[in-house]
Amino acid sequence: MLTRDDCVARDAADPLAPLRRQFALDRLDAAGGIYLDGNSLGVLPRATAGRVEQVIAEEWGSGLVGSWNTAGWITLSSSVANKIARLVGAGAGEVVVADSTSINLHKVVSAALALVQADAPGRRRVVSERTNFPGDLYIIEAAARAHGCEFAAVDDERMAAAIDGRLAVLVLSHVNYRSGRLYPMAALSRAAHAAGALAVWDLAHSAGAVPVRLGEGGDEAADFAVGCGYKYLNGGPGAPAFLWAHPRHAARLDRDQWRPPLPGWFGHEAPFDFSPEYRPGRGMARFLCGTPPILSLAALECGVDSVLAAEAHGGVAALRRKSAALTGLFIERVESRCAGHGLTLVTPREPAARGSHVTFAAASGGYAVMQALIAHSVIGDFRAPDLLRFGFAPLYTRYVDVWDAAERLAGLLASGEWRDPRFAVRSTVT
Amino acid sequence: MLTRDDCVARDAADPLAPLRRQFALDRLDAAGGIYLDGNSLGVLPRATAGRVEQVIAEEWGSGLVGSWNTAGWITLSSSVANKIARLVGAGAGEVVVADSTSINLHKVVSAALALVQADAPGRRRVVSERTNFPGDLYIIEAAARAHGCEFAAVDDERMAAAIDGRLAVLVLSHVNYRSGRLYPMAALSRAAHAAGALAVWDLAHSAGAVPVRLGEGGDEAADFAVGCGYKYLNGGPGAPAFLWAHPRHAARLDRDQWRPPLPGWFGHEAPFDFSPEYRPGRGMARFLCGTPPILSLAALECGVDSVLAAEAHGGVAALRRKSAALTGLFIERVESRCAGHGLTLVTPREPAARGSHVTFAAASGGYAVMQALIAHSVIGDFRAPDLLRFGFAPLYTRYVDVWDAAERLAGLLASGEWRDPRFAVRSTVT
Repeated sequence: MLTRDDCVARDAADPLAPLRRQFALDRLDAAGGIYLDGNSLGVLPRATAGRVEQVIAEEWGSGLVGSWNTAGWITLSSSVANKIARLVGAGAGEVVVADSTSINLHKVVSAALALVQADAPGRRRVVSERTNFPGDLYIIEAAARAHGCEFAAVDDERMAAAIDGRLAVLVLSHVNYRSGRLYPMAALSRAAHAAGALAVWDLAHSAGAVPVRLGEGGDEAADFAVGCGYKYLNGGPGAPAFLWAHPRHAARLDRDQWRPPLPGWFGHEAPFDFSPEYRPGRGMARFLCGTPPILSLAALECGVDSVLAAEAHGGVAALRRKSAALTGLFIERVESRCAGHGLTLVTPREPAARGSHVTFAAASGGYAVMQALIAHSVIGDFRAPDLLRFGFAPLYTRYVDVWDAAERLAGLLASGEWRDPRFAVRSTVT
Repeated sequence: MLTRDDCVARDAADPLAPLRRQFALDRLDAAGGIYLDGNSLGVLPRATAGRVEQVIAEEWGSGLVGSWNTAGWITLSSSVANKIARLVGAGAGEVVVADSTSINLHKVVSAALALVQADAPGRRRVVSERTNFPGDLYIIEAAARAHGCEFAAVDDERMAAAIDGRLAVLVLSHVNYRSGRLYPMAALSRAAHAAGALAVWDLAHSAGAVPVRLGEGGDEAADFAVGCGYKYLNGGPGAPAFLWAHPRHAARLDRDQWRPPLPGWFGHEAPFDFSPEYRPGRGMARFLCGTPPILSLAALECGVDSVLAAEAHGGVAALRRKSAALTGLFIERVESRCAGHGLTLVTPREPAARGSHVTFAAASGGYAVMQALIAHSVIGDFRAPDLLRFGFAPLYTRYVDVWDAAERLAGLLASGEWRDPRFAVRSTVT
């Protein structure tokens, strides 16, 4: 029978434990807080404030416009992109950092549809999964419409049947934002390929927490991918996002002289020629659009560095092992300590089938339970209509955090404290 | 005959002079630097570093994901937008801050085309001006193609003729990024309306420096507009951009239930319902897309506040008067002191016909002349093939700066120092 002391011992023996010191968690720790929402907003690396201050005061304040050259602003986006590439098993030059996940998804779905339709104009169906992140569904549907395609968001059970001869592009999230289910990227991508289609993946809830090997020699068989900078990459609220294309597709887009749907000046072959004619930048450069957001990119780089620091300790594979242990422990603790209070595990029980967060459905009062838990300094989030969601970012979440979070949840369920009317008051964002 | 002492006296008497103290120009001043590139990248407000530090350390670091509610992140974008609205003569709720100028231009050109084509499907021509900012031309052309329209970038002399019965949307920059020419927004918008078309304006080189009255009761007759956060608004490198729609168009988009081309989750009617069906947010909200970039928005707000501080001193109208005096003085000084060195004024001589920057064409060696000038701490920029561009942001540029800049330019032209081969070495960005 595991004890809290066992958790303390596990943390003491954890080779990844020193990585936690990278983060500005002193005040949270001093207040006894437990942060289980790194899958929504990653925590602040200690390095970020100083680096952004330097960019503001030195590079912008003193260097002024010259910093595009002298401070390397012009290549900052690609520097950060090449660091992210290491986290998702891609090569240098294969990743672009720009804009938001939504806008990048629009770009890559458009590119994938252009490639498929060039060879098979009759393929006019784009498929995603019904419980995929809604923002993704909106963007995918719009991109499909813009290419004269129909869009279908199907249930998991109908996914295999939907990968048929009509399919142009399959667009899925690697880890579902609600359930935490990890989709088998390689198998589904290969099924799409076998059907003559392409596969696009959103890594928002996996990049930095689940090993991904996108590039040449990788095993995911993905064609395009996008991902988020502010979840497990710790880039800060609303950080820039990234996108990736397989090198063979990037080369094909070159050969086809494909024009992206958002042909901004930073994606031009020679932006500072100020040519009135658009000529797409080589390879991935065409996926850039407007002037890069330097302050945000500097903060994102610090976040990405905080994950790359794990490379000396086994990298994302080691993070993944710890993540599986943390999520497994949480499931075990909640199920044993909160039994009889109407919580049902939504996340797959098999570690290989889930990402780094765990979701329970509440039979009643889910919103109030989460608010009560937050009042007890355990920060998870609620997703309508009934889901309690807990993220376990393995860079900074401790085994003892898992133990204590489950204990506090058990305590407020047992006491009925969550029924206090003040916990039922809805705020605008949950 | 004006003297340098007269310029010093003008600065001493300038009611706008105290506004300069808002900016972190101490090191530039100590080094005798003169910054004439605020039309490319506005200078750093003193308030910015502290505010961004607060957002990072307090709101993100300590407040964590809860800051979406408790620190007002969820409404930060609209707060900044409503401040920008005051600078462009628009009402609260009429402006949206998001993404980049390029992406916002894509959104509003798409909206304008949707409105025109709903009533007049036969109108299939989008017109801009040949020397408009190339990034705008690329985006406009792509949006036109996506709506089955042809695109024409015409010379100024052919503009009147191009506003004909085929025209769907006219898209122009209020101030040309090269020449500094100020386009007559009201007259051209009315001409477009008389022809049955709509007019979209890019305010990148005018917002914050040239009075604009977009909204109800305004006199610009514009239909849609976009603008840049990092030029005269001092929002920092790559700051978020803004867009505006006339309230009658926003209402029409509502009635038509128009779906934007980039339907992101933050533009949904109820983002936190996580509905799988996209329902556009009311009015302007649908122009939002992904998660807002909080660090960048905080910096942009400080920049916008630095311009709003002029409201106590006559506002943008007072800035405009000073701007006209500065640019006029620069033209006069360069033409008198640099005569015989092959510089030709490109910017309109009539103050009402130019924005806040001045461009001279160099008969030869333009790039080297600008590099030599920068070596003498006068920072302007070069635009291929032969243009020397100087911005006079009236919030922080002094009359004595204008005098000294022209003197230094005259000096290096007279000495021939600019012919030193080191000044001809091209950097990646100019």
